[in-house]
Amino acid sequence: MDRVIIFDTTLRDGEQSPGISLDVPEKLEIADQLARLGVDVIEAGFPIASQGDFDAVEAIALGVQGATIAALSRTGFQDVDRAWEAVRHAARPRIHVFIATSPIHMAKKLRMTPDQVKAEAAAGVARAASYTKDVEFSPEDGSRSDVDFLCEVLRLAVDNGATTLNIPDTVGYGVPEQFGALIAHIIDTVHGDYVVSTHCHNDLGLAVANSLAGVAAGARQIECAMNGLGERAGNAALEEIVMAIKTRNDYFAGIDTGVKTEELARTSRLVSRLTGYPVQYNKAVVGRNAFAHESGIHQHGVLEDRETYEIIDAKTVGQEAAQIVLGKHSGRHAFSDTLAKMGIRIQGAALNSAFTRFKELADKKMEIAEADLEAIVAEELGSSVVNRFALLSIDLHGGSSSRPTATLVLTDNGEKREVTADGNGMVDAACKAIAETAGFHGRLVDYSVASITSGLDAQANVVVQLEEDGRRASGRGVSTDVVEASAKAYLAAVNRLLRRREAADRDAEVGP
Amino acid sequence: MDRVIIFDTTLRDGEQSPGISLDVPEKLEIADQLARLGVDVIEAGFPIASQGDFDAVEAIALGVQGATIAALSRTGFQDVDRAWEAVRHAARPRIHVFIATSPIHMAKKLRMTPDQVKAEAAAGVARAASYTKDVEFSPEDGSRSDVDFLCEVLRLAVDNGATTLNIPDTVGYGVPEQFGALIAHIIDTVHGDYVVSTHCHNDLGLAVANSLAGVAAGARQIECAMNGLGERAGNAALEEIVMAIKTRNDYFAGIDTGVKTEELARTSRLVSRLTGYPVQYNKAVVGRNAFAHESGIHQHGVLEDRETYEIIDAKTVGQEAAQIVLGKHSGRHAFSDTLAKMGIRIQGAALNSAFTRFKELADKKMEIAEADLEAIVAEELGSSVVNRFALLSIDLHGGSSSRPTATLVLTDNGEKREVTADGNGMVDAACKAIAETAGFHGRLVDYSVASITSGLDAQANVVVQLEEDGRRASGRGVSTDVVEASAKAYLAAVNRLLRRREAADRDAEVGP
Repeated sequence: MDRVIIFDTTLRDGEQSPGISLDVPEKLEIADQLARLGVDVIEAGFPIASQGDFDAVEAIALGVQGATIAALSRTGFQDVDRAWEAVRHAARPRIHVFIATSPIHMAKKLRMTPDQVKAEAAAGVARAASYTKDVEFSPEDGSRSDVDFLCEVLRLAVDNGATTLNIPDTVGYGVPEQFGALIAHIIDTVHGDYVVSTHCHNDLGLAVANSLAGVAAGARQIECAMNGLGERAGNAALEEIVMAIKTRNDYFAGIDTGVKTEELARTSRLVSRLTGYPVQYNKAVVGRNAFAHESGIHQHGVLEDRETYEIIDAKTVGQEAAQIVLGKHSGRHAFSDTLAKMGIRIQGAALNSAFTRFKELADKKMEIAEADLEAIVAEELGSSVVNRFALLSIDLHGGSSSRPTATLVLTDNGEKREVTADGNGMVDAACKAIAETAGFHGRLVDYSVASITSGLDAQANVVVQLEEDGRRASGRGVSTDVVEASAKAYLAAVNRLLRRREAADRDAEVGP
Repeated sequence: MDRVIIFDTTLRDGEQSPGISLDVPEKLEIADQLARLGVDVIEAGFPIASQGDFDAVEAIALGVQGATIAALSRTGFQDVDRAWEAVRHAARPRIHVFIATSPIHMAKKLRMTPDQVKAEAAAGVARAASYTKDVEFSPEDGSRSDVDFLCEVLRLAVDNGATTLNIPDTVGYGVPEQFGALIAHIIDTVHGDYVVSTHCHNDLGLAVANSLAGVAAGARQIECAMNGLGERAGNAALEEIVMAIKTRNDYFAGIDTGVKTEELARTSRLVSRLTGYPVQYNKAVVGRNAFAHESGIHQHGVLEDRETYEIIDAKTVGQEAAQIVLGKHSGRHAFSDTLAKMGIRIQGAALNSAFTRFKELADKKMEIAEADLEAIVAEELGSSVVNRFALLSIDLHGGSSSRPTATLVLTDNGEKREVTADGNGMVDAACKAIAETAGFHGRLVDYSVASITSGLDAQANVVVQLEEDGRRASGRGVSTDVVEASAKAYLAAVNRLLRRREAADRDAEVGP
C-alpha cells in the first residue's frame, strides 16, 4: 500500500478562522482526539504569533502521543528558533517553514525581490534543518507563482534540507486539472528525496478535488482540516479526503491513509463544539443528514438494498454509533464504563460532576445520545482550572408584556452574590447580570447557538466570544435551557478574560 | 459567449432534504428570488409525489416569470400527465422524465430487465414530447451504469423527443477525471440535437468539481441547488459553480452563466431561513466568513492589496451590501423605499405590520442589517393566510431554582385565552403551553435555531417541524428573544397542521 500522509491543520489554519480562539486545554483535547483518529501530522500552531500559540504547541509536543507535531514558522531565524523551542519535546517534531513566491505576494506583502525570497527560503530551511531532520517547506500562494521560479525555490529548499515540499493553493484559485499538472511538473523538475504535499483552500468549492488531483499526480501528503475549517472558506475537509480515497479505492488504486474512519464523526463534533462553528446538516460525511434518505423513492431503494443510494456505510464514519443504553437509573460504574468505551478518560472530581450532570440530564431528556455525553464531559474536563466566578442558579421572569429580567446567584471567589438585570431578551438580561457582577466593560464579538441533537429537549451548545482591552476569550455552555447555556458560556468567557488580565498584570510586574 | 444553463433544483432535490417541508407560499417566495437571481430553469417539484407538490409546481408555473419551469416525472403515463398538468401554464414549461439505468437500481429497486427500462424510457419521453418540445431525460444513477447500455437508453430518449440529456451522479460516486470522460463519451456516441447536463451529488465532496469537469467536456447545463441542498450530502452548490466559472474565466474560456451574482448572498439567506438549514460559517461564497481575514499576516496582505488573499470581491456576491441607514427614527416611506431597493415587494397590511416590527426591532438593536429586514418581511409576507391561533404575549419565570413556567396569551379565532405550562427549559415550557391550548398531540420532528446576525441582540431564527397523524408541517419564528422565536415557530407549525387537518376533512367529505 502507498501511504498518503494526512497532515491536519485544524489547530493552525483552522484556528485562524474568525471568531475561533481556543485555549491550551481545548487545543490539547482536540490534538488528543486527532491522534486517536490516526492523523500522521498535527500542525499545532504558529509559535511566534503569540504566547498562547507557543504554549499550545509546547503542551501538545509534550503531551500528545502517536503523531508528528509540526510548528509553523516564517523564514526569519527568530521565527524558526521559536518554532523549534516550542516543538522540540515531541517524539517526532517537524518545523514547517514558509515564504510567499507569487509576484503579487512578493511585491505587495513581502516587498522583496525574487532573489531575496530565494535567499530567505534557503536560509530559513537551513536553520530549521540544523534542529531537526523533519523540515517542511511551503511556497505560499504557490499556485499563482511563476512555475519556473517556484521550482527554483523548491530546489533550494531541498538542497538546504527540506524533506517535505508543500504546494499551497493559498487563495483557492486552482482547478483540479491544472493543480494536478503543477504537482506532476514539480515532481518531474525538482529532483531529490522529498514528499510532495498539497494545501488547498475552498474558495471555489474545489479544495478536496484539487487535493485529490494532487494525489493522482504523485503527492503523498495532504494538508487538511476537520470540518473544512480555515481562513475564509476554509481548507480541504479531512473527512472528505479520507472517505474519497477509501470509497474510491478502485480509482486511487493501492493508496491508503492511516485514519480510523470510525472516529471521524466524533472528531467533527468535538471540533464543532469547541470552535462554535456549526456543521451544515448536509455537510458531506459528517453532516447530521449525510446519510439520511427523505424521498419515498430513495427510502424504498435503501430498504431493498442500502447500496442503491449509499456508497458509504454510516457506521464506517462513526455516525451510527451503537445505541447508548444509559438512562436515569444507570449508576456511576456504567457511566464511566460507557465513557471508557468512547475513549474518554475522566476521573476524580471531573468524573463526579460529569456524573451529576448526566443524572440531571437523564431526568429531563428521554434519549441520551453519545453526543450528549461528549458535551457534558467536555465541559467538566475544563473544570480543573480555578474560576473566579461560578453560576449557582438562574431565574428569569418577564417577556413580551413586561421587560425580561434575570436574577443570577453567582459565587465570586467562593462568596455568594445575587444580581438582577433586565434586557431585550432573556439571554440579554442574563448576560448583563454577569457583566455587571464581573465589572466586564468589553464587547461581545461573537455569539452562536447550536443544538447538540434535535428535539425540544435537546441540549443547546452556546459559544460566546468577548473582547476587552484588546484581549479576546471564548466560553462555552451546555444546557437543555438555551438561556442557561448562554449564561454559562458568557461566564466562562468572562472567567477566562479575568485570568488573562491577571496573567498580563503579573507579566508586567516581572518583565522589563 | 457559450452559455451554460443553470438548472436550479433547490425546490425539488433540495426540498427532499430531511426536515425540510416548504409550503406553497414559501416555495413561491424562493422561486421568485431564483428568477431574480437569473437561473435559467427552476425545477419546481415532483407533481405526482403529493398534492402539495402539485400545487406548488402549478403556482410557480402560473406566477413566476423569466425562467423555464420544470416538473419531475417517472416514465409512467400517469406521472407524465400529472407533471404536464401542473406545469403547462408556464411561459416555458419543461417535463423532466427519469428512470434508473444502473444494474443495482434496475435489479433491486425497479425490478425490471434492461429491455424493460429501455421501453419505459422511450415511452415516457414520447408521452412528454406529445405535450411540450422541452423534454429532459435523466438515467438515474447514470455514473454507475454500464456505459454502452447508458448510451443506448440516451439514444432512445433523443429519438423520442428529449432535448436535454442529464447525467446524474446520483450517489456522489464520481471523480472529476472519470465523470468528465463519461460526458465526453456520451457527446461522441449519442448523436442528435440536445444539450448535455450534469446532476452531481456531494457525498465525497466532489459535486462541484464533477460538474465543472462535465462543463469542460462539453456539458452545457448544470443541475445544482442553493447552499448545496439536496438528498444526503446534497447537490452541487449553485453559488460555487457560478463563481468558479466566473472567477476562472481564463480556464472556462468563453463560457458564461446568466446568473446575477450580486443576488447570491440574499438567495442563500432566504433559502437558509425558510428551510431552517444553517449555512456553515466557512461555506464557500455564501458563508458569513467566506471573505473574512483573521490572521495578522493575511490582514496585512489584504490591507496592502486585496488580491493578495482574495480572488472574489465580496460585493460581487452581494455579501457586502450597501450599509442600511435605517434606524429608529426612519419613517414608513424610507422603510418601504429601502425594501424596494432590495427588490422586495410588500404592501397593505403586510407592509404595516412589517413596519411595526421594524420599529420594535430598532428600539432593541443598534444596527439593523439587510438580513434583519429580510427576516421580518419574510414573516409578514406569509401573514395573509388566516391562522386559528395568534400569539399576543409571552411571559416566563423560573429557571434552575424553580421549574421554568411560561404564561402565554393567545387568540383562538380572535378570542383571547391565557394558558400556563411548565417544562424542562423556557422553550419547552412555552411550547407545551401552545400544545395544550391547541390540543396538539403529535410529536416534534425537528427544531433548529440560528442567529440571523451575530451579537447578543441578534434576532434568532427558529424553525420547528411537527408531525401529527402522519401529516407534517414546519413553522418559523423570528425574535431577539430565542424563547419568543421558538414559541412563534411552534405556533406557526401548529396553525399549519390545523389547516391541513381541516383541508383533509373537507376532501374526505367531498371525495369518494
